[in-house]
Amino acid sequence: VCVCVFLLSINKDLISVQYLYYSRRAHFLHGPYPTTHFGPKACVLPNPTSVMHIQDPASQRLTWSKPPLNVLVIRKVRDEGLLEPFKELCRFLVEEKRLMVFVEKKVVDDVALTADETFSSIRKQLCTFREGFDDISDCIDLIICLGGDGTLLYASSLFQGSVPPVMAFHLGSLGFLTPFKFESYKTEVDKVFEGNAAIVLRSRLKVKVVKGLFQRSEQLFKPEENGTGPPNHIGTEVLNEVVVDRGPSSYLSNVDLYLDGRLITSVQGDGVIVSTPTGSTAYAAAAGASMIHPNVPAIMVTPICPHSLSFRPIVVPAGVELMITLSPDARNTAWVSFDGRKRQEIQHGDSIKITTSCYPVPSLCCHDLVYDWFDSLAQCLHWNVRKKQTRLTDGSDSSDTEN
Amino acid sequence: VCVCVFLLSINKDLISVQYLYYSRRAHFLHGPYPTTHFGPKACVLPNPTSVMHIQDPASQRLTWSKPPLNVLVIRKVRDEGLLEPFKELCRFLVEEKRLMVFVEKKVVDDVALTADETFSSIRKQLCTFREGFDDISDCIDLIICLGGDGTLLYASSLFQGSVPPVMAFHLGSLGFLTPFKFESYKTEVDKVFEGNAAIVLRSRLKVKVVKGLFQRSEQLFKPEENGTGPPNHIGTEVLNEVVVDRGPSSYLSNVDLYLDGRLITSVQGDGVIVSTPTGSTAYAAAAGASMIHPNVPAIMVTPICPHSLSFRPIVVPAGVELMITLSPDARNTAWVSFDGRKRQEIQHGDSIKITTSCYPVPSLCCHDLVYDWFDSLAQCLHWNVRKKQTRLTDGSDSSDTEN
Amino acid sequence: VCVCVFLLSINKDLISVQYLYYSRRAHFLHGPYPTTHFGPKACVLPNPTSVMHIQDPASQRLTWSKPPLNVLVIRKVRDEGLLEPFKELCRFLVEEKRLMVFVEKKVVDDVALTADETFSSIRKQLCTFREGFDDISDCIDLIICLGGDGTLLYASSLFQGSVPPVMAFHLGSLGFLTPFKFESYKTEVDKVFEGNAAIVLRSRLKVKVVKGLFQRSEQLFKPEENGTGPPNHIGTEVLNEVVVDRGPSSYLSNVDLYLDGRLITSVQGDGVIVSTPTGSTAYAAAAGASMIHPNVPAIMVTPICPHSLSFRPIVVPAGVELMITLSPDARNTAWVSFDGRKRQEIQHGDSIKITTSCYPVPSLCCHDLVYDWFDSLAQCLHWNVRKKQTRLTDGSDSSDTEN
Amino acid sequence: VCVCVFLLSINKDLISVQYLYYSRRAHFLHGPYPTTHFGPKACVLPNPTSVMHIQDPASQRLTWSKPPLNVLVIRKVRDEGLLEPFKELCRFLVEEKRLMVFVEKKVVDDVALTADETFSSIRKQLCTFREGFDDISDCIDLIICLGGDGTLLYASSLFQGSVPPVMAFHLGSLGFLTPFKFESYKTEVDKVFEGNAAIVLRSRLKVKVVKGLFQRSEQLFKPEENGTGPPNHIGTEVLNEVVVDRGPSSYLSNVDLYLDGRLITSVQGDGVIVSTPTGSTAYAAAAGASMIHPNVPAIMVTPICPHSLSFRPIVVPAGVELMITLSPDARNTAWVSFDGRKRQEIQHGDSIKITTSCYPVPSLCCHDLVYDWFDSLAQCLHWNVRKKQTRLTDGSDSSDTEN
Repeated sequence: VCVCVFLLSINKDLISVQYLYYSRRAHFLHGPYPTTHFGPKACVLPNPTSVMHIQDPASQRLTWSKPPLNVLVIRKVRDEGLLEPFKELCRFLVEEKRLMVFVEKKVVDDVALTADETFSSIRKQLCTFREGFDDISDCIDLIICLGGDGTLLYASSLFQGSVPPVMAFHLGSLGFLTPFKFESYKTEVDKVFEGNAAIVLRSRLKVKVVKGLFQRSEQLFKPEENGTGPPNHIGTEVLNEVVVDRGPSSYLSNVDLYLDGRLITSVQGDGVIVSTPTGSTAYAAAAGASMIHPNVPAIMVTPICPHSLSFRPIVVPAGVELMITLSPDARNTAWVSFDGRKRQEIQHGDSIKITTSCYPVPSLCCHDLVYDWFDSLAQCLHWNVRKKQTRLTDGSDSSDTEN
Repeated sequence: VCVCVFLLSINKDLISVQYLYYSRRAHFLHGPYPTTHFGPKACVLPNPTSVMHIQDPASQRLTWSKPPLNVLVIRKVRDEGLLEPFKELCRFLVEEKRLMVFVEKKVVDDVALTADETFSSIRKQLCTFREGFDDISDCIDLIICLGGDGTLLYASSLFQGSVPPVMAFHLGSLGFLTPFKFESYKTEVDKVFEGNAAIVLRSRLKVKVVKGLFQRSEQLFKPEENGTGPPNHIGTEVLNEVVVDRGPSSYLSNVDLYLDGRLITSVQGDGVIVSTPTGSTAYAAAAGASMIHPNVPAIMVTPICPHSLSFRPIVVPAGVELMITLSPDARNTAWVSFDGRKRQEIQHGDSIKITTSCYPVPSLCCHDLVYDWFDSLAQCLHWNVRKKQTRLTDGSDSSDTEN
Repeated sequence: VCVCVFLLSINKDLISVQYLYYSRRAHFLHGPYPTTHFGPKACVLPNPTSVMHIQDPASQRLTWSKPPLNVLVIRKVRDEGLLEPFKELCRFLVEEKRLMVFVEKKVVDDVALTADETFSSIRKQLCTFREGFDDISDCIDLIICLGGDGTLLYASSLFQGSVPPVMAFHLGSLGFLTPFKFESYKTEVDKVFEGNAAIVLRSRLKVKVVKGLFQRSEQLFKPEENGTGPPNHIGTEVLNEVVVDRGPSSYLSNVDLYLDGRLITSVQGDGVIVSTPTGSTAYAAAAGASMIHPNVPAIMVTPICPHSLSFRPIVVPAGVELMITLSPDARNTAWVSFDGRKRQEIQHGDSIKITTSCYPVPSLCCHDLVYDWFDSLAQCLHWNVRKKQTRLTDGSDSSDTEN
Repeated sequence: VCVCVFLLSINKDLISVQYLYYSRRAHFLHGPYPTTHFGPKACVLPNPTSVMHIQDPASQRLTWSKPPLNVLVIRKVRDEGLLEPFKELCRFLVEEKRLMVFVEKKVVDDVALTADETFSSIRKQLCTFREGFDDISDCIDLIICLGGDGTLLYASSLFQGSVPPVMAFHLGSLGFLTPFKFESYKTEVDKVFEGNAAIVLRSRLKVKVVKGLFQRSEQLFKPEENGTGPPNHIGTEVLNEVVVDRGPSSYLSNVDLYLDGRLITSVQGDGVIVSTPTGSTAYAAAAGASMIHPNVPAIMVTPICPHSLSFRPIVVPAGVELMITLSPDARNTAWVSFDGRKRQEIQHGDSIKITTSCYPVPSLCCHDLVYDWFDSLAQCLHWNVRKKQTRLTDGSDSSDTEN
């Protein structure tokens, strides 16, 4: 019964929904419903076409419509220590779990692997692909990463649309994106296959570089129509950040930043970083940004060594559209890169358009959204790690403080 | 049965909503709907009880169910320059708009006002109230503020539940919370009375100080049941921030920070600031935080002069529950204040619980959400205001750079 | 005549000194002599009265004109773990070294000490004094500290003029001011008694609070004549810093900062810290300052949570005279404290004058000037301690980076 | 008589010098003489060979051994607005002051100049030179700069040994290094020719890049003997900073930092800046450094976007020798540049050695050392420029604060 009421309530108004809501759970991760009536007579003008229906991120769990069959295994290259774990994992997935395992061709052709005869039967059963030649983005059910955070950035780059769930193991020390310990990998993989595992949807940015069309005189630049993008743009999805910097030049970069078509500010310095919350603990943190939990729907804008002492990083809503161009008076070009890759030059007339993508990376949690993040902050960034002692100034350990 | 119906409806609903949505507007302020299917076989486990229905903040506009009648006017005290604008505004509201105007008693009894005979007929028609004695929180339809940002903090403190719309004028220089110029006040007030004005819902924090119940041995502190709070707590709503600091003591404060019942970190330093996005441009900015647009559903945690070099501010989702207590080994007490007011001591066993309130302050925009905020950043904080010149190092104005 | 002689001697002297110098050692700690001739025809106008003669700090070693006899032992109070080391040290100094050992009366009267019969014979031989009653500043040859950095701040406060050498032991973890391990105390003490030990002269600030005389209208405030200070001032020497803050008030402090009698800037915020290089790693570091090696002749000025985003800390030459007053338009008073002690209120008309003192604290080094400092940075402040890994953004561990 | 005493006193000890000293002037810019006796029995071991004789920087004034004759004029290129001032200045120097004026050949050959017939007689009298071909470093008596700070960096680069006095004019807005207004150039130039003008000696860094000799196994790297440098190094003098960064690479740089031959820390990030106090307000400020007055004898080390949250900038004594090499485990090379110029690659085995040079840039002050610097901070960097208002949090303008 309650559901009928619920469905009706969507069409009528929000009040009854709120009633239902509060009778069930204390708070959503995005906060409680704000009241929409203000004092005795004012309220928000209802606008049905602008109502969003979002499932509480804290309650999101993974399920499978069919049992997963095709697993992509990504390992960090040039790390000898990963060779045995990689072989062990492949053996487990192929022999015990009876799965199709996809591995990049160059990994499979690695001498260290081909030289091992005991592994050759497994090796023959691996499906290989070459980046840039074979498109596997439609056939992978689960991604397993072995190594550092870079493996996840790489996985993200392989899936420009929908991304399969990613389960990431660290071997040595915990990474921001690699929460699982390899020691217990069999148990952990089994748990994920059962479904009902905690996931965090890490938002990505959708970036388009439009070449040669922009003129500042338009000032209020119209956002492009959807789906009708001109052929002269390059699009990509990033998990951490888009960086615009001076590249190999030793001169300052001068770029203009637009938000929803409006010129917001000019950046004079080494460059600017536009990052997801996930990226806020990466390069943006090095450039001085505050760190944002991955479930906050936001985009972070961080200048790199700005000429202005007062250019503090800002956090804007996830749904805005940012655009970056060279400033009209810029004497040099700038360079853009995407999660540290695909570096390219930006010239007068080019524009970089950035907004939150609808294709997040569903990243399996080891514990949960909150625990994993704070654990990573402490272990990866030594966040607030300190010697437990009184500060020099406080004098509290000097003899006279008993008085 | 009902769940099936529900699930179908969700699936249908989401699709059609998305369809509608994309055909009308490029994006919601909180970002696009993330896809809920990941690769060929994985998806988010549907959970009808945890679906939120939020109206896009960018589309929120004010409307009136009945014409507003009772207006509260708040003016900054001890500022002579405000006397004439205040009188002019009251005269306009009383004589031209025929409204009931509420003013604090001590403002009406101000000698400068009583001495003015030409104002006495208006003065007699003003409704007065005394803070702490007379509760006007249920009868005000609109609040008009004259002066600095402090007037809005004060207005917020008068309305611990639902807050009527606030229209704030600056006289001298633009404030973060006072976007309107007084010069054109008649036109602006008329526009607001017509309805369909842009508003920003500024989230507030709901804070409770629970005295003497907390023991760290519990470790995973259970959040209190809703509505059954014990009588020994004091609750309040803040618009900017809760500050916990060392108060008059010259010794460091040592406090523990919990998130959803779990100990996250200990703060050793001058204190810690828990702020709304609105508050991120106030004290938190002074303490080094990044600045957050008011429409990002988040809470900011900023240490004040922390002993640890690596204690960077963090941004967490608006829906978490934070708790602050003295650390078990703290040798001194701490002090808490709310938007700079109601300072009180915190002792061992006390706990401060903080989460996002469902009663935001609906603040009328002068232009719109985005424009107003960036305008304030530039004018109030000189954000990225700089001399337009090349940096010393870049050598670009030295004679040899033509080579 | 005499001036001619003098000038000649300067010219000769400088040349020969430089010659000697360069033939022995590559550089002085303050840098090489700058040339005083600029191109073919320009030079610095010689001014014999303004030539300084400084011994290179890097070469400063301790020596004794007579064998030291009177030793002051300072221990951190309320730390049970220090009881046995303290007794052991006293026994060693009294019985083996045959020295007069001075200890604060309340330390000697501590129940834990009086209860120990085996210590009573030593205890009877200790010389006691009471802070504020007995002046021992003229009779101590060496100070030995046991415990945290606070013991050294306390030692500094006891000697407002010349300070005897200080040898500071840490028990648990290394402190900035306590470089010696207690384990090998006998060997270390013997080495110091032999003379020729490395010392660092930690500069202190001489601070005077002048009550009620200042008027801003003077604008170019004349520095007081030397030695003729009026009776209404209170002077003190600080090793870390002078802090001017809002004290128990919850309102911002507004103070003006003068340098050599000239108004430099106004500080609006929680306050301002004026610190020595030694203090730059204490409260100033928490407030965002860069860290200065103790042998740089400088004074650091650091705002505490300034209202202005662009108020960066500054470093000025050690010889300037700073003055701090309330701003004329300050609505509240401010509070000043000295190394975290003697907190007092500052009102309109009061001024705080600060300059480098000629009485440094000669602090014995465990290794040397450079090693000790960087060791402390790493161990006390975790300076640049990090997980050795590639940053997330660099993508260097993703599969495609071999290309 | 007093000078005789003085001279004797140098040879005997420092006490009488101090006496003399204090009877004349309240304080030197580097601070007062520290006492060298500590308590009744301890003192600094006298070491005549390590005594420095420095003239107080605050008293340094320019004088001329013979009237200046050869003047080098440097103007910012590609700035049309400078054409008329440049011509006016040349005319004044040639016709009125009867001086030999040196100008770079490409400036003289500029079409805008050759096209002006009225200037041709002056133009013919200008002495021209080409950078890299003609060495004028021994024949210039005075340098006059017209334009931005870059002109001074360029002037510095032309004089790798002794630098003639520099007088720098800004046309539009004040620069850190260009204190003079052009409006009153005749008066100002005349004053400088008279002698007795205030100067600030801006220290430079002497940098050597040694190729291919370094092996970390030596660990305690021995500083090279003076004057016996191997032929495989490149030396240069910088006024602002040496920057070591990742250059065109998108991978992090990994470099090791040595101080006086000892490994101090490793830098993982975008790079590291080693700057003079003059450079502390340039790129180092953008990277987060505190700002150092040019008369503090120090070197600043500032990481650029370090991976570690706790890597704060540090300030070390001017006389230390720093060395930078690639870390043994660095996978990529690094790049070094000098005042933004001469960018070159650094590979394994290379080392960059940096220490304070004995050839400062003598820069003429417009007012004095202190005034000029703070004026530049305010005008160039908007240091602590802010809206004069109470902070939002302080609530001091809300109605209830009268209570």
